[in-house]
Amino acid sequence: MLTDRLARQIDFLVQADRLKTIIRRTPLTDNSRLENSAEHSWHLALAALALREHAPADVDLARVLELVTVHDLVEIDAGDTFAYDHDPAVHRTKADRERVAADRIFGLLPPDQMVRFRALWDEFEAHATLEARFANALDRLQALLQNVQSGGGSWAVHHVTRGQVLDRMAPVHSALPDLWPFVLDVIDRACDSGAIVRD
Amino acid sequence: MLTDRLARQIDFLVQADRLKTIIRRTPLTDNSRLENSAEHSWHLALAALALREHAPADVDLARVLELVTVHDLVEIDAGDTFAYDHDPAVHRTKADRERVAADRIFGLLPPDQMVRFRALWDEFEAHATLEARFANALDRLQALLQNVQSGGGSWAVHHVTRGQVLDRMAPVHSALPDLWPFVLDVIDRACDSGAIVRD
Repeated sequence: MLTDRLARQIDFLVQADRLKTIIRRTPLTDNSRLENSAEHSWHLALAALALREHAPADVDLARVLELVTVHDLVEIDAGDTFAYDHDPAVHRTKADRERVAADRIFGLLPPDQMVRFRALWDEFEAHATLEARFANALDRLQALLQNVQSGGGSWAVHHVTRGQVLDRMAPVHSALPDLWPFVLDVIDRACDSGAIVRD
Repeated sequence: MLTDRLARQIDFLVQADRLKTIIRRTPLTDNSRLENSAEHSWHLALAALALREHAPADVDLARVLELVTVHDLVEIDAGDTFAYDHDPAVHRTKADRERVAADRIFGLLPPDQMVRFRALWDEFEAHATLEARFANALDRLQALLQNVQSGGGSWAVHHVTRGQVLDRMAPVHSALPDLWPFVLDVIDRACDSGAIVRD
């Protein structure tokens, strides 16, 4: 009934459903619950459409949409690694855990698609292309918006400092410079309200 | 600190977060909960990437990704209209409810972007372009996969008949004919298991 190729594509899409159960540390803007990595990925695609004009003119929007759609799939096996986790072992092991996950998850696809999807994930992770830099900047900006709108979010819960947030937002500074004054203003206000620890 | 243009873009992205709270009738594949329209939209983008080769060769994939990213935003105000709702008034009022929602939600954006996003939504709804037909086929196929994987999903809960499901899946037949034998097989098995009512 199914060719092996189509069976693999369907199985990949079915297993990808689990990204909806991977919980991030950032809340919804109404603070009703933490968001998951699938809906977060959708939000990045929407942000790419809405903020396109602030990226360099020659950014390939289609590529950006592909990058953000695929960028968190490894979390199905590797889990979401919290950017501000205090345990250095979490960050040290992240790359290895995610590589193993990428081998399995993209390996569900037919070989040519495995290569193409894996290349998208590698590109996102490497921050080396215009498209990956734009996609990563959106990833950081979206978490900032979720935190500030929900009244502090993961910053407040985990006692994150201004220096940590500034480091984390560096991709916005380089890839979306139009938005940097806004980001600085958000961070300053969050320091004033106590959501971010002023260091 | 913000130009009016950027302020509108940010406000649009913040308000769009509410799509994560719009609950559909289809469950996650593990049947742990019903899915929301934001994570569903992400799943369609992933399906567009994985199933691209089954669409006509000249389909513009970037356009498809834009369509699926935007296609459910009106539900923030209009709610998700269940395809198999028995109340004819629900379907009669859907277009009007969604038009009012589109006016408000896309109207959050600067005027040129309002026009562009609205055009994407109109295109998806009209099923008139290759890209809209592919996107709509993915929308139907994804619901079928969620239902069958979760053991019946919205079909079983709402006593949906085979004829209703076949009507609903017609866009798959026309836009993704490679997948039609698979869809028919899934429907037949769901009839055998009692998840779909054989009529």
